[in-house]
Amino acid sequence: MELPVDTDRLKTDIEANAAFGAIEFDDPAKRGRTNRTGSEANRRARDRLVARLEDAGLSVRVDAVGNIIGEWVPAGVDPDAAPVVCGSHLDSVPVGGIFDGPLGVYAALESVRAMQDAGVKPARPVAVVSFTEEEGATYGTGLLGSSVAIGETSVEEALAFENDDGETLGTALEQIGYRGDSTLNSGDWNSFYELHIEQDTTLEDAGVDVGVVTTITGITHGEATIVGEANHAGATAMDERADALAAASQFVLDVEAAATTVVESDSATAVGTVGSLEVSPGASNVVPGRVEASLDVRDVVAESMETIVAAARDSLDRLERERGVDTTFVQPASVEPVPMSERLRTTAHEAATDTEVTATDLHSGAAHDAMRIARVTDASLLFAPSKDGISHNPREWTDWEDCADATRVLAGGLTRAAGVTVEE
Amino acid sequence: MELPVDTDRLKTDIEANAAFGAIEFDDPAKRGRTNRTGSEANRRARDRLVARLEDAGLSVRVDAVGNIIGEWVPAGVDPDAAPVVCGSHLDSVPVGGIFDGPLGVYAALESVRAMQDAGVKPARPVAVVSFTEEEGATYGTGLLGSSVAIGETSVEEALAFENDDGETLGTALEQIGYRGDSTLNSGDWNSFYELHIEQDTTLEDAGVDVGVVTTITGITHGEATIVGEANHAGATAMDERADALAAASQFVLDVEAAATTVVESDSATAVGTVGSLEVSPGASNVVPGRVEASLDVRDVVAESMETIVAAARDSLDRLERERGVDTTFVQPASVEPVPMSERLRTTAHEAATDTEVTATDLHSGAAHDAMRIARVTDASLLFAPSKDGISHNPREWTDWEDCADATRVLAGGLTRAAGVTVEE
Repeated sequence: MELPVDTDRLKTDIEANAAFGAIEFDDPAKRGRTNRTGSEANRRARDRLVARLEDAGLSVRVDAVGNIIGEWVPAGVDPDAAPVVCGSHLDSVPVGGIFDGPLGVYAALESVRAMQDAGVKPARPVAVVSFTEEEGATYGTGLLGSSVAIGETSVEEALAFENDDGETLGTALEQIGYRGDSTLNSGDWNSFYELHIEQDTTLEDAGVDVGVVTTITGITHGEATIVGEANHAGATAMDERADALAAASQFVLDVEAAATTVVESDSATAVGTVGSLEVSPGASNVVPGRVEASLDVRDVVAESMETIVAAARDSLDRLERERGVDTTFVQPASVEPVPMSERLRTTAHEAATDTEVTATDLHSGAAHDAMRIARVTDASLLFAPSKDGISHNPREWTDWEDCADATRVLAGGLTRAAGVTVEE
Repeated sequence: MELPVDTDRLKTDIEANAAFGAIEFDDPAKRGRTNRTGSEANRRARDRLVARLEDAGLSVRVDAVGNIIGEWVPAGVDPDAAPVVCGSHLDSVPVGGIFDGPLGVYAALESVRAMQDAGVKPARPVAVVSFTEEEGATYGTGLLGSSVAIGETSVEEALAFENDDGETLGTALEQIGYRGDSTLNSGDWNSFYELHIEQDTTLEDAGVDVGVVTTITGITHGEATIVGEANHAGATAMDERADALAAASQFVLDVEAAATTVVESDSATAVGTVGSLEVSPGASNVVPGRVEASLDVRDVVAESMETIVAAARDSLDRLERERGVDTTFVQPASVEPVPMSERLRTTAHEAATDTEVTATDLHSGAAHDAMRIARVTDASLLFAPSKDGISHNPREWTDWEDCADATRVLAGGLTRAAGVTVEE
């Protein structure tokens, strides 16, 4: 059965949402937005979502950190049965795109409306959720709302996070009227679905409509500091130098080589990146005395991440011995790879087959709320194609038909997970 | 004959000069200064120098770019004979030391006073010079006053240089009363001597009092730009990347290797440095898309500099082929190595022997006014030891006895170059 997902209705929702925090952009066919958690634009986006949820007959609650949930409990359904929940987030990075987040929220709502329009009666409640501060762009910690919903982060801790102006999340939410009194406990959910744009070109390159994520990669962040000796570039002989940048350059190449070796031998999805490198003093006529380098290692396999991080540490040890530099390495954050629910992946593929939408398995290299929810219940992450893989950018784009196809799969998966009776 | 150089008189001059633009520093035994060309501190330093030159009976002139020259024409000496000139500069880098520049100016004056005190009568005029904007820290172009004095830079061009506030050198000099109407033509000089601190540890390590520079190294500055493709660090597979930082890292190591090879095979004084490296976008979770790297190559042998620069270019070409990055390389400035006058080096060594000051030949890795003057007349550069080789820093230090020893050699060299009659 194919649910009557309405492309125009979905498009209208996403475009209307894009107006909140809209920014000028040189390509009139596209548009960007800055929708920071707790801002006026964020309030308006939330107000509109609440209104649309209520229009569809959902009962809306807001929890203490501003997570919004709208629940559809058709007549005869046990309101206390574990719900099937679906959603994403409305906040954006500064100068971001219009799909990253809102597609998942409004596709969830469109799925419910399509079920309603088709006379589908789920066997349990179906809910639409919008999580607070997924991006971490304003209060510094991503996946914040979903972290609170699984009990990993306490409400108090979350509300105390401050933005660059020193304003707490609690104050900001209060000001926009979204510091609610309800509680969200994802552990009580039957299952969770999230639809998101891919942010890469796997689907585009393969010409496939929908991606079914197998695993969200783990991430290890590291910070390496290499200290040599700053000296006059003209007056310091080559063999008298402890050049922190030359040492750091070896580190960058060692990380690249280690990741490439892992890709070739163990796990094709492994990546290791030095994205940031700060050189001090950074003058053309001074031998660099200090370098700070970031390390970002991701894979769907925890062991291969460990292999790359170990190689990075070995590299620093070797640089100490061979180049007379001092090094330190800290790992402020590390997250294990998170496999998605096999049960829900199966429902997604079945729904794709039903609706004649092509689907493929892939992994997610980026973090999403689904990776938090997966700790406490079955979770599934679906991807819609991203034009050129661009995201966090006004050029971010997914064709409306691709949005609708992915929503059809989402609606089908939700319906299967909820268990249905169709009233003719 | 040893000239009666007065350590206390020299110390008093340098300490008094250090008060102009003096900055707080944590070590009370040392002190820093910021004496920018055209500043009030610079005016006061110049005023004091002029007064001290006149005290010693020198007739002072100021040229159109603020170069100050005080000429001693003893009775009976042809005032039109080519003078022997000696000096350095009074300006400093921001938060610099008190010896870099002023030692050479006041050692020149002390040499003249010592000659006068000893009753030495030179056969030609002897002059003390202080060049404008040697550091290039305020008007962007170093060796400015000496470049004008040899006719390489026109007065108009020099006066039009602007500081960070958009004020021209001409305006600044006018405001402090040092836009003079005299002309300085170093081509008319018999010879030029400059005493400077070494800014390296050759003398300190060898326990030698004075360095006699054989050659001021040539310098080539290069700017390499490497453009790859910025991409999500999680979602971009290792074999899909064009990582500008990984490519730049190879460039840094190639430059280091090329310089080391030249040192081991051809010229021990060659150096190649990448001191500055700017990574864009420079976020830990983004594969770097663009890197700008500086190149600084120096040696006393032009061919070895060319070898290193060629290796740097080859490296970029190879990175284009092997890593799919685009590269550009520009060389905004290149200066050939400048040998110092053999005649004056001989007089310096003779003077050292006479005064029982130990001296050694060495090269200069840094640029000095003497390298400009050497293009139009015989020039000599002497070095006094630098504690730990530190300069451009309030920790810069040369012991007063070392200052005096070097001044004794300077005075002896000047006297030999000027030709003397001693009036008993």
